[in-house]
Order: sequence, then structure tokens, then C-alpha cells
Amino acid sequence: MKDWAFTTTIEEMEAATNSLLETAQKVGADTWQQRVKNQTPHCGFGESGTCCRICSMGPCRITKKAPRGICGCDVHGIVGRNFLRFTAGGSATHSDHGREIMHTLHEAKEGGNYQVKDPEKLIRIAKEWGVETEGKDIYDLAHEMSEIGLLEYGKPFGVQRFLDRAPAHTRELWQKAGLEPRAIDREVSTAMHMTHMGNSSLPEALVRQALRCGLSDGWGGSMMGTEFSDVMFGTPKPIDTEANIGVMEKDNVNIVVHGHDPSLSEMIVYYANDPEMIAYAKEMGAKGITVSGVCCTSNEVAMRHGIPMAGNYLNQENVVLTGACEAIVVDVQCIFPALGPLSKCFHTKFITTSPICRMPDSEFIQFSPANAGDNAKAIVKMAIENFKNRNPELVHIPNMKQKARVGYSVEAIVKVLDGVANSQVDEFGTTKPLLECVTSGVLRGAVAMVGCNNPKVRHDAAHISLMKKMLENDIILIVSGCSAQAAAKAGLMDPVQAKEYCGAGLKRVCELAGIPPVLHMGSCVDISRMMILASELSKDSGIPISQLPVVGCAPEWMSEKAVSIGNYVVATGIDTFLGIDPYVKGSSEMGEWLTGEHGVKDWVEANYTVETDIEKLGDLMIERIEAKRAALGI
Amino acid sequence: MKDWAFTTTIEEMEAATNSLLETAQKVGADTWQQRVKNQTPHCGFGESGTCCRICSMGPCRITKKAPRGICGCDVHGIVGRNFLRFTAGGSATHSDHGREIMHTLHEAKEGGNYQVKDPEKLIRIAKEWGVETEGKDIYDLAHEMSEIGLLEYGKPFGVQRFLDRAPAHTRELWQKAGLEPRAIDREVSTAMHMTHMGNSSLPEALVRQALRCGLSDGWGGSMMGTEFSDVMFGTPKPIDTEANIGVMEKDNVNIVVHGHDPSLSEMIVYYANDPEMIAYAKEMGAKGITVSGVCCTSNEVAMRHGIPMAGNYLNQENVVLTGACEAIVVDVQCIFPALGPLSKCFHTKFITTSPICRMPDSEFIQFSPANAGDNAKAIVKMAIENFKNRNPELVHIPNMKQKARVGYSVEAIVKVLDGVANSQVDEFGTTKPLLECVTSGVLRGAVAMVGCNNPKVRHDAAHISLMKKMLENDIILIVSGCSAQAAAKAGLMDPVQAKEYCGAGLKRVCELAGIPPVLHMGSCVDISRMMILASELSKDSGIPISQLPVVGCAPEWMSEKAVSIGNYVVATGIDTFLGIDPYVKGSSEMGEWLTGEHGVKDWVEANYTVETDIEKLGDLMIERIEAKRAALGI
Repeated sequence: MKDWAFTTTIEEMEAATNSLLETAQKVGADTWQQRVKNQTPHCGFGESGTCCRICSMGPCRITKKAPRGICGCDVHGIVGRNFLRFTAGGSATHSDHGREIMHTLHEAKEGGNYQVKDPEKLIRIAKEWGVETEGKDIYDLAHEMSEIGLLEYGKPFGVQRFLDRAPAHTRELWQKAGLEPRAIDREVSTAMHMTHMGNSSLPEALVRQALRCGLSDGWGGSMMGTEFSDVMFGTPKPIDTEANIGVMEKDNVNIVVHGHDPSLSEMIVYYANDPEMIAYAKEMGAKGITVSGVCCTSNEVAMRHGIPMAGNYLNQENVVLTGACEAIVVDVQCIFPALGPLSKCFHTKFITTSPICRMPDSEFIQFSPANAGDNAKAIVKMAIENFKNRNPELVHIPNMKQKARVGYSVEAIVKVLDGVANSQVDEFGTTKPLLECVTSGVLRGAVAMVGCNNPKVRHDAAHISLMKKMLENDIILIVSGCSAQAAAKAGLMDPVQAKEYCGAGLKRVCELAGIPPVLHMGSCVDISRMMILASELSKDSGIPISQLPVVGCAPEWMSEKAVSIGNYVVATGIDTFLGIDPYVKGSSEMGEWLTGEHGVKDWVEANYTVETDIEKLGDLMIERIEAKRAALGI
Repeated sequence: MKDWAFTTTIEEMEAATNSLLETAQKVGADTWQQRVKNQTPHCGFGESGTCCRICSMGPCRITKKAPRGICGCDVHGIVGRNFLRFTAGGSATHSDHGREIMHTLHEAKEGGNYQVKDPEKLIRIAKEWGVETEGKDIYDLAHEMSEIGLLEYGKPFGVQRFLDRAPAHTRELWQKAGLEPRAIDREVSTAMHMTHMGNSSLPEALVRQALRCGLSDGWGGSMMGTEFSDVMFGTPKPIDTEANIGVMEKDNVNIVVHGHDPSLSEMIVYYANDPEMIAYAKEMGAKGITVSGVCCTSNEVAMRHGIPMAGNYLNQENVVLTGACEAIVVDVQCIFPALGPLSKCFHTKFITTSPICRMPDSEFIQFSPANAGDNAKAIVKMAIENFKNRNPELVHIPNMKQKARVGYSVEAIVKVLDGVANSQVDEFGTTKPLLECVTSGVLRGAVAMVGCNNPKVRHDAAHISLMKKMLENDIILIVSGCSAQAAAKAGLMDPVQAKEYCGAGLKRVCELAGIPPVLHMGSCVDISRMMILASELSKDSGIPISQLPVVGCAPEWMSEKAVSIGNYVVATGIDTFLGIDPYVKGSSEMGEWLTGEHGVKDWVEANYTVETDIEKLGDLMIERIEAKRAALGI
């Protein structure tokens, strides 16, 4: 094993958290660490997926004595329905993020709160969609595109427009297996209908719809979320920032943004940089204003503005526990309801902003494209005015942070590759230089590492240990979501130091291209960027996606979105490795469908591997990558 | 108590079922009666709604020791989320039925499998929707309307078209409380998003979305399901039929239709009446072909063709247990997966037809508008050819049936009322004669009794005992779904005898109008008919719906659809009485919101009552009706 001495270790992060938990104890606050103890052990029926609450005849639980529910559904049908519903929850949620972006785009205007910052990208997508762009005002085009995009959620006929981005081979597989997603919301409703009492109980049908519903997210709602966020807020390019709790600044007003939709955080960032606001902060006794982020909102503003990342999902209570958080402003998804009562133990303002996410013990300030500027300004002001209410005895920000280079959209990656292309022989604007590295064996392959934290796994330990293992084996990482933040917090995105401990090939690539070995591709909706990258690699190489030495991994996932994502990643032909079972272990048939040699693999040439032993999970990934290399003869 | 001697009692129905269970035992078949025993007691967490499986950190269960889930969600948030998801499942399912009808309408053509049988109704709705009808070919209009209707599922802007049918006062309440449903599928997706990990945990927000999601069903998807089924298959009018297991005929080929969408059953009925098929049946040794129905499919074809009703939800295994069922043909919803293995104990063909409802141990013959005729004919033929495979030793059809007059669409009710209107003083085409009966006290009020069966209540006992109680108290019943079939099986729709034991006022009304005291308004999607009727009563009287002496009741409900229905019935201003708790008893706050004086009642002037003591439930309904009368001073 190499020496990763410069990185921040799990033990160091835990020590920092423990120092914050002391504050929690002082103020009598509840934290997830305690709640996990209270909730352990979990219900075995729920964990294995064998409990059905879908009608009010039950709940029914499958045992040897009771092998069927009251309706007669067997364990495979019950586990399968629960899996499909889990997917539907994730797909609906992820896709709704994209819808909000499209509605925001519909209100974008010259000089307004929201504007078109990447008109070229808008025009490029318009051309893809067959929309006339010549001589059109960019905002007229934006509104037209938003209406077309919004119809992707509800059009009565046809399939998702972005499917055309996939390689022909992938399209054929989808078509043949009946996986092409229709309107995004329809796939959610179909999933709910199929799982309603007295409908489907055949695993094959439930799994098929789970993939289709996932695809409507990854190649539908999420992809629109990503692409049109770029149009409005700019397509990310490499930018330097910092990560971990130490990015919060003791002497500054600290505003933490948390959630997912950049429409909120962009506005907060804008007003926090407003000289008028900074002057006001100074007037109120602070040295300035620091905006930092938690979860995917953090990824969004880190990717586009280099806003520092205070932490990931299981750090969200920590930012309040510093006693130095004037406001935590949230929009949607992955927000602990715990932040309500927790903020009451401090001076912290807990501000909710979306009708989708209403929580007790929060101040609700509803955001809309029309009022976003005024509301963001009011929130920044509120935070500034709250600075004086700190209890100095409770203020403690662990001194812990790392440098990180982020911002690797597909466009940015291609640009990096252009930089290393040989101008005499190579095409520009392709992924070919990367493919050459892989073919030659300088890189063995790539892992797309994504997903959340989950107390069932030691916080960040799986992300970080797996990443180190891959890097040492010359496997490059593309990451997003809370996995990306784990990497950044540990230092694995440090553009100077991180490459030093990688395998020799990967190190060389990093040096040549000036990149860290772990590429931050964005928030969880931005896994769509990874799908586009995989498609480009396939098209540029002529090799089906499933044959590329690339796998997906979510070692600490926890949300329904992660299962929706897993389904579209697998359906795109990428073998996917999970560190936590998606509540399906109660059914051998579901296991066969998802992880076997003749389940989904027969449809899409890829499947799942579920392995809770993280060391083993890593070995399996490397093995799979090497097997794919061997099959290609490289 | 009056003497209802002519009715079939619960005890008699149970004796018949018991005789069939003897056959089950003989062939080693599993039945719901046994499975209920296996599954009892149910999980207390699930039954009270206090278990959360929405992310993979859990499952979490709320106890005194563990008052919050790992994310910090309290019991009210957990129960509230479960309630909203339950609603979303129901709304998606019910509305999807309407969508299928709209897609079928899109394929309707002159001389095709599906045709426009009620062009007047189509034109009437087109006018409501502001669609030009003049000089348009009826099929062009049908296709145009179907496309507009399909967009109600997914339009990016605006609210449901049919909301305009509600009285102005109701519209205002909806508008003020933020309850107007947008696109139908969007309300499902919003519900899933709000309940996803880290979103809403505030009961107020969850309950509001539950009502909005319900309204998108009742005033959206379900209403389109009903209205355009009438357009294609004819608007029901009074027709005589029979009900209970004895409608199956020993010497005939018995085909049982089961499920919900009339697109399937209409075709089966058509081909079962085909002289060629009847001749073939005779050739194969049968005397003829009997189609009978179970569940809402049965209601659909009973309402339009007088097809007899073999039973309701908890009778579905009984039809197979007669040993005389050649085929049970199903489409979607409320189908026991148990029918697969059960049919294998007999010669019965269990035929599934929809990709929404795929089950093990069934033959899958996919229906589409294009192949419906051919497939229906093939199924009828398959049943005929299966007649010879009966095991005569297992054939036993309990000799039990009652006469029933059914077919009371709103149009049919208004026509009946026209028949008793005084042509000198009254307007025609209104509900005024009914209002006069209510105002004068000849009728005390009305109960809309609906919903399923649930083994938690003695099968049909609640439906029938409550109905008798209401009738004796001069309260007229409008019914649908399995409640309607309970009434029909007992004899309460017998147009000659049933009125005899009603209160004097109701008896007089029945005699005058030539109606049974229990009016069959259709299947469960047809509860939308009841909403239209309530709206008409309100408009004709100038009294808000909530003040009319009308209540809703689902004493034996079991499916998510029932909760979606309950939500839109309450949201329409009709107090609703449930005999089974919708998994919310674990939260006092959710109880307050749904059943209290200042929850949903502040928004929509109506609320829920949950009472599992059925006798008491009946008393409470009468009390509420009398209180409304007193408030009106009538």
C-alpha cells in the first residue's frame, strides 16, 4: 500500500465530529449518531423487503408459516413491488428537480433573476431537438425549449428525446427489451399502478418497469436538470476550491446552502457577494460573509463558482453544531428534519424555501423565479443580523480542510483531452485521447463512484478506501454527489498532491492533463453527465458501453434516488456495485433478476453486484474491469 | 327493526362460501380465509403508520425510546408521508384507468373494435372544453378530445379542466387552500417527491398534497375514465340483472371477467353473445355461454349490458372454487395473485391481459385496441374448449342469487326525476324533485356508500347492515364498486321487494320513481358520477355541497384507491366515514388534520370520521345527516 499521508483520514474526520458532538451534548441536542443507536436493530422484514403495506388488509409479512400475503402475493412479488416503488420515489424526485429547472428557464429573462448564461449550449440542444434557432431571440428560444422540455414529463405519445444521445446499440437493446421511457411522470404513475394491490406480482415485469422508470430519470428528468442548469448557470469548468468543515470561517457570517436545486443557491451566492451585503456584515461585527455548502447544492455552486464544500450528507448536523452557522438555507431532498429542533439549540436560522420540502421548526420563505432575488437578499440580510446572536461559548469550527479542483463537466473533460491530443494526428473534441490511455493500459479503466452516506457504513470510509484502492490500481474516478464530497474532504481532488500516490500510469495522465485523479462531475442529477460521457466513449471507440472497462459504484447509498440512478446506470450497460442491499435480499428471484447472469443482463448487458464487505466490493470491481479488458483483448 | 326476510343474509352467504371452502380443502387450495389466519396479528408499526422504509438508512420505527427516525423525522411526519404515498398509489392507479380509456378512444373508429356509442355525450363534453364540434366527423372529434384529455395527465401549466363542473363555492375553497390539481401525473410525482427522504415532514403540507392528489383523480383521471367510457360504451340507464354466485350456470361455459377497465370486458361480452360462439359452445357439450363478473369490471358490464354479478372483491376465489369456471379473464387492479395457483387446482384458465398486471401462473394475452376483438374471440373460444376439462366431482355452484336493477348514471337519475316532476311547475333535467323530497323530509338525506371488502370486517356485513339501517331511516343510498355488489347480492337492489322495508318516505319515493332504494352508480371510478351529482344538487339548490344532508362511507375499504377517493370526496365537501383506519392512528396530529374540527375542515368544510365499530359508524352518519338538516332548518 502507498502512503496517502497528506489526506485527511476517517479517524481525523471522526475526531472532528466527536468534538462537535460534545457541543451537542452540552446543549442537549439530538444527533444522527444517537438516533442510529435508538433505531438499531432495524426490522428484518423491512430490511429484506418482505413486508407489504400496499393495501389495508395487511400489513403482511412473509415467513415460512405465512408464505403469501392475504391477496396471495408471494415473497418475490412483494419484494419486487417494494423495489419498483422505491425506484419510482427516486425517479419522481430526481426528475422533479429537472422540472423545476425547466420552469425556472421558462421565467428567465434579460436582466432578470435568472438568465441564459450558456447560449451556445442552449442552441446546441435546440438543434438536437430539431428546434429552429436561426434569428431567434435567445430568451424566446429558451422559453420554447422549456415548454418542449416540460412536455417530456407529460406527453401522451412517444419516448424521451434525449434517448437519441445513446449509442445505436444501446437504443436497440432498450427498444428490444421494452425499456424506452415514455413521459417521465407517466413512468412514475405506471410504476405506482403496477405495484398497487392486485396488479403486477411477476418479478420480470416489476424489474422491467424499474429500469424504464430509472431511464426516464437518467435520460429524461435528470439529464434536463443538468443540461438546462448549465444553460442558465453556466457549464462547469475546472475551478479550485476547498472542502471540509474548516471552510466555515469563525469571524465571518456563515451561510450554509443545502439541498439540490441551484436556482436557490445561485441567488444566495450572488447576494452574499454583493458589496452592499458585505459592508452590512462588517457593520454587524463580522469580517465578511462565507457561503459554504452541504450535499448536492454544494456541488452545484462548487462546480460553477468554487464555493467551498463544508461537508456531505452525514455532515449536515455538523455545520449547525459549530455554533457558527447563522443560517442554513435548504430547498429539496436529503434535508434532515432533525435540522429543525437542532437549530433551536443554537442561534441558527433554519430556512426552508420549497413547497415540496416543508418541515416543522423551520422558517418558510417560498422561492419562485419572480421573487428569488428579493428573497435571497432578505435571507442573506437575516443571516447577517443573526451574527450577533451567536453564543461564543458554543463556537467551535474544527480546523480541517483540503484543496480541491472541481468542475469536470463532459465539455470540460473533452477540453482537457484536447489539451493533450497530438495536434498532428488526433481529432479534437472527442474522448479519443482517454480511450488511448485505456487501450494502452496506462489507465486500466474507470469507476463512476456516486451516492450518499448511510450510517450502515462508517461515514465516508467506503468512498475513500475504495477510491484509494482504485487510484493505486490506475483506475481513474469520476464522481458526483456525496461521494465527490467525501473525496474532496479527504484531499483526493487536490490537483497537486493526490496524483502522487496513484499508480504510475494514472499519475502520468494526471500530470499530463493537469487534473486530479478523482474528477468531480457534479451533483447527483449530474450522473447524467456520466451517461453522456459513457455514450461518447462508446461512439468514439465503436465498442458497446457494456464492454468498456467502466463500472459504477454506490458504496454508501441511502436514498430512493440512488436506486433510480442504479437502474438507469445498469440499463445504460454499466455494471453497478452497491455496498448496501436495496431491500431485496428476501427474494431469490429478485436477486436473480438484478444480480444474476440471466436477469437484466440479458436485456442490457449489465447487472448489479451487492456486497456489504467493502474490501471485497473493491476487489470485485477491479476484477470486473480486468475481465472487460481481457474480453477486449487489451 | 324491520324484517328484511327476502334478503340474502350474511350467514347464508357465508354458508355458501363454506361449502366452496370444502372443495378448496379437497384440492389442497389456499384461500384468503386461511391466509388471513397466517398473517394475523399484523405488525403494529405498519398498522399505525409509524414505520418508515423510505430510505435505506432504516427501516425506522417510532417508539417511546426512539421518538424520531434516523433522519430526525418525527411520528407525525412519518405517518403523514405514508398517508400521502398511499394516496399517490391510489390516484396513480385510478387515473391510469382513465388514461387507458383515452388511449382506447384515440383508436376508436367506425366499424372498429371500439366505437363512439354516445356521440351526444362526446359533443356535450367537447363544448364544455371549448372544442369546436360543428361539422366535425365524430371520430375526428373523438381523437381530438382524446388528445386533449391525455394532456390533462401531463400539461405543464394550468389545472384540471373538469374542475369547472364544481359549484363556484367549491372552486373558491380549492383555490384558496391551494388544492386545485395540476396535471394528474404531476400530482403523483409531487407526492412522491414530497415524501422522499429529506423533503416534507410537516403534516399540513402532506395532507394538502394528499387532497390535491386525490382531486386530480376524482375530478381528473377518474372523471375522464367514467365520461369517456360512457362515450365509447354508452351511458348507463336502468337495466335488470342478477347477483351472487348462483348467476354462474352449471351447464354453460362460464367466463368470469374481473378487474376494472371496460375495454376488455366489453369485447368478451360481445363475443360471448356471438351466435357462432354459442353454437361452438353447444357443439362442445355446453348449453350456452354465461359471462358473469367480479369486482368493478362486473359493475361496468352490469351497468351497460345487465351482465350478472357473481360477486365482489372477497368472492373472487369463490368463482374458481365452483369448479365450473372455464376462464377468469382479468385486466387491472384488485386481482388476487392467489388466482394463479388456485386456478392450477382446477381446469380454470387464468388469463391476464394488461402489461400493468402481470402475474405468475397466468396465461398472458396482451390486449390492445387493435387486437382486442381477435383476442377476445380467442379467449371465448379457449374457454369453450376448456369446458370438457371440468372435473364433475368438483362442480358445485351454490344456488344463491337476487334480482337487481342497476344503471343509475347521473343522466339516468335525472331522467327518473323528470318522470316524477310536475310538468306544470317543475323544470326538467334538474335534481330539483330530489331536493324537494329532501327538503320536505320525505327523504332525510343520502349516503354515498362505496369501497371494497376487507377481511378486517366480516365480509359484506358492514355494507349490508349499514345500508339497511339507512334505508329504515329514510336515507337513500347511492353506491358503487364492491359496496354496490354487496347490496345487489343481498337483494337490496331488487326493484320490487327492497323498498318494502324502507322507511315510509323512502318507500314512497321508490314507488313513485320506480327505483330500488339503493342506486347502483357504477364502478369505483364512477364515484366521479357522485361528485357530479353532488355538484348538481348544490347548483340546483344554491346550497354548498358541505351543507347538503349527504355523507360518504367506505366501511370495508382496503385499497389505496379508496384513500385517494376519500380524499377527493372530503375535498369536495362531503363528510366521509371509514370503517378501517388508513394507517394513521399513530399520529395525533394527522388525526387532527383528517378528523378534527380545524384540519382539512377549515379548507373544505368537511372531514373524515374513522370508526371501526360499524353500528356506531351508522349512528354517527345519521347524526351528521340530521345535524346538517337542522343547520339548514329543514
